[in-house]
Amino acid sequence: MTEKAPKTGYDCIVVGAGLSGLIAARNLKREGLKVLVIEAQNRIGGRMVGKLLPSGQWIDQGGQWVGPTQHRFLNLLNEYHIKRFASPSEGLKVLVFDGKRYEFNGFFQGYHEGDPPGVSDEEWNDAINAWNRFKKLSDDLPQGHPHFGDDIEKLDSDTLARWISDNTKTPFGNWYFSYMCRAVGFSGPSEPKEVSLLHALYGEKVASQSEAPEAELLHGGAGQIPSLIAKELTSCIQLNEPVYTIKHADDFVEVVTQKGSYKAHSAIIAMPPHLAGHLLYEPPLPALREQLTQRIPMGTCCKILVTYPTPFWREKGLAGIAIGNNKWVELAADSSDPETGVGVIAAFVSCDRYRKWQNLSSSERKESVLSDLAIYFGSPAMSPTTYEEVNWPRNSYTGGGYTAYMPPGVWSSMGQALSPAIGPIHWAGTEMSDVWPGFFEGAINSGELSASNVLLSLSNLKQSYSK
Amino acid sequence: MTEKAPKTGYDCIVVGAGLSGLIAARNLKREGLKVLVIEAQNRIGGRMVGKLLPSGQWIDQGGQWVGPTQHRFLNLLNEYHIKRFASPSEGLKVLVFDGKRYEFNGFFQGYHEGDPPGVSDEEWNDAINAWNRFKKLSDDLPQGHPHFGDDIEKLDSDTLARWISDNTKTPFGNWYFSYMCRAVGFSGPSEPKEVSLLHALYGEKVASQSEAPEAELLHGGAGQIPSLIAKELTSCIQLNEPVYTIKHADDFVEVVTQKGSYKAHSAIIAMPPHLAGHLLYEPPLPALREQLTQRIPMGTCCKILVTYPTPFWREKGLAGIAIGNNKWVELAADSSDPETGVGVIAAFVSCDRYRKWQNLSSSERKESVLSDLAIYFGSPAMSPTTYEEVNWPRNSYTGGGYTAYMPPGVWSSMGQALSPAIGPIHWAGTEMSDVWPGFFEGAINSGELSASNVLLSLSNLKQSYSK
Repeated sequence: MTEKAPKTGYDCIVVGAGLSGLIAARNLKREGLKVLVIEAQNRIGGRMVGKLLPSGQWIDQGGQWVGPTQHRFLNLLNEYHIKRFASPSEGLKVLVFDGKRYEFNGFFQGYHEGDPPGVSDEEWNDAINAWNRFKKLSDDLPQGHPHFGDDIEKLDSDTLARWISDNTKTPFGNWYFSYMCRAVGFSGPSEPKEVSLLHALYGEKVASQSEAPEAELLHGGAGQIPSLIAKELTSCIQLNEPVYTIKHADDFVEVVTQKGSYKAHSAIIAMPPHLAGHLLYEPPLPALREQLTQRIPMGTCCKILVTYPTPFWREKGLAGIAIGNNKWVELAADSSDPETGVGVIAAFVSCDRYRKWQNLSSSERKESVLSDLAIYFGSPAMSPTTYEEVNWPRNSYTGGGYTAYMPPGVWSSMGQALSPAIGPIHWAGTEMSDVWPGFFEGAINSGELSASNVLLSLSNLKQSYSK
Repeated sequence: MTEKAPKTGYDCIVVGAGLSGLIAARNLKREGLKVLVIEAQNRIGGRMVGKLLPSGQWIDQGGQWVGPTQHRFLNLLNEYHIKRFASPSEGLKVLVFDGKRYEFNGFFQGYHEGDPPGVSDEEWNDAINAWNRFKKLSDDLPQGHPHFGDDIEKLDSDTLARWISDNTKTPFGNWYFSYMCRAVGFSGPSEPKEVSLLHALYGEKVASQSEAPEAELLHGGAGQIPSLIAKELTSCIQLNEPVYTIKHADDFVEVVTQKGSYKAHSAIIAMPPHLAGHLLYEPPLPALREQLTQRIPMGTCCKILVTYPTPFWREKGLAGIAIGNNKWVELAADSSDPETGVGVIAAFVSCDRYRKWQNLSSSERKESVLSDLAIYFGSPAMSPTTYEEVNWPRNSYTGGGYTAYMPPGVWSSMGQALSPAIGPIHWAGTEMSDVWPGFFEGAINSGELSASNVLLSLSNLKQSYSK
């Protein structure tokens, strides 16, 4: 292949057209900067991606929910006139534990309200007491990235599994906490044995279930948003162009792809951290950053979207929300848009369950998920209209889902290398955010912040030129 | 850049010209196969690399030692007529703990002989008792990669830091074990908080200090070996050619680089696991492998080679071997070749010490290392002839040193994805080996094994063609 002279004249090149990259590029363009967005995949949106089913129903293959304290995301939804509706939750919830099935009129996801499920008082209190101890530790962390805290090395020297083992007495209490790590919170998801106790505490601190991040869903889905943002980025986005190399000096960046190269005053790398680490930097990055990106794996989760002619579970008084230590599906949630009348269940197969499940044949995988849904919601679950697996760990340009997590020792030794720019290279992506990391809210925060930092650095650069 | 048709006619393409890649390519070529070795760097050898000093003294910037049970490496040395000499150890060893300096006539590196250092009996027994408990746990593991063992998940759910904290009573006992993790054994090196207890136990099982892997050094250094192997690979090695993409099907591999593309019946990816994960695979690899390579970071270590006109420490009866919780250098070892008369100290700055140290200026780094050596060996250490840092974590094509390690949870959940070939793609590199991983011995084992597996698969392929 022949070397061509790089294309020049760009103020900032954004690598990655996920939500944070799009927000960063849009904000810079609004300030009059010349921006180029380069994306490896054949589409924009990253983990904000939807699909139109033959029925006319939109489903979200990536994230889907919004909560009342996610102000940046709510503002974005208002700006684009996207309407929200309460995530369906009326009716009885289902818990399945060790083969016993409980219907109950309450809710617990760390925080609990209403009636407890029918497990014994000992089991219930064990789970709740452990949660309260965990919450207390989490509250005591400082705001922001946890490496700024004093005395955090001890918390970062244990796995969450060790803490759970030391702080629960019953198999139910142990499972419940593990379920929180594998299916719901603390970012990741990960097995408790994989994640730092400090990271789990930090996850609960800055993206707390107490703030109900799954309170609402969007008419038309979150997947419609990337193209709305991209309307302001006409002819600024190039798809199907993996980036290989970032050459850099104090005052320029050259981004080299399969197809060409591009020179700019600055760059924003808006990718999951481990993928940012896949690029070759010339000269090499500082050792802390080089090694940090070897140590932030993506979580392990497949999202499965199953649709039915109607939300049949409601006829039996069920909310369509179920958790349990079933063989495959630990969490399933009603995601039906009331305007369409279609029944939609979002089910999740995570971590060790995922690792076994993904070895099955396609028909075995479907059968196993539907069987678990039938245990939760009854036999009509076996007869869906559509069945869609979104296998994030097999997507090389994402590497997993929902988000990245820190194994033990990483925050306390290398956390300081996560977000600061290195010369003209800025980092974005929901994993960078110290509020709602792993959520759309974190992606927007990180995109906005990186754009501000680029603007600041370019204005400093102009000042130094004019001297 | 323009697409060219791939070059064809290769039986096997080896990506990476470190020791394992060279051994694999050599073995395949000896069997008459058409082999191509593609290397990203401007030199072969990987972590087997030497440098000629102005004095005529060779130093090893990577690995340097060999032990009596490393039979593959010993055979290789014999084949190339490389002579060995006992790693200098006569005289008093030095221990510095919490500012106190002890000279003693013994040795302890996990295993101990001779007199103990002058710490209190309580401290000494604490360290030794913990070591014995650790050794017992390690002995009880099955042979080979530890994920084959029963009941290993519990060991894989804790950090080594937690085990040390639970199994030592004195600061000395705690430090000694941490030192073993940071500077000597268990592969990595890593902080105890970063590594799985299971991985540390496995490291001691399959690369045991009891077998004295640092018993001997090589006249002329290990760095002379790659070019000796490469004599059999004339015109088969291409340098300065980073690989980007591996396209694959059941019966072929196409390796795409910055400069062109190459098609073969099979490929051996002979790189550290995290770097193998940096390549783009089309189609994507199974999720287990994709996510495993996000979870095997390289250790954190800078090797510093300091030379003196003579081994001055011997005049004071010192062996030139020192360990201690000094500010920067926890381990220093006499590496002087008796044939040259030059004094050579190999010093190591690892893990959290390294992460602070690498922020210093070049002169501060040198001053800090020499000051620590002066504490160990006396003030002549401040006046070296040469001072050479080999900063492995800043080398993008290695990513750290000495080798990779597993954080908690990785072996038990994903270990099965480490070494098996995926279609025509085979994996090599010392990290793959289940004997002496992280050592030259492991690299040779892995290179030999991958070559055998390629031969087997190609002979199967031919049989299926002839049917």
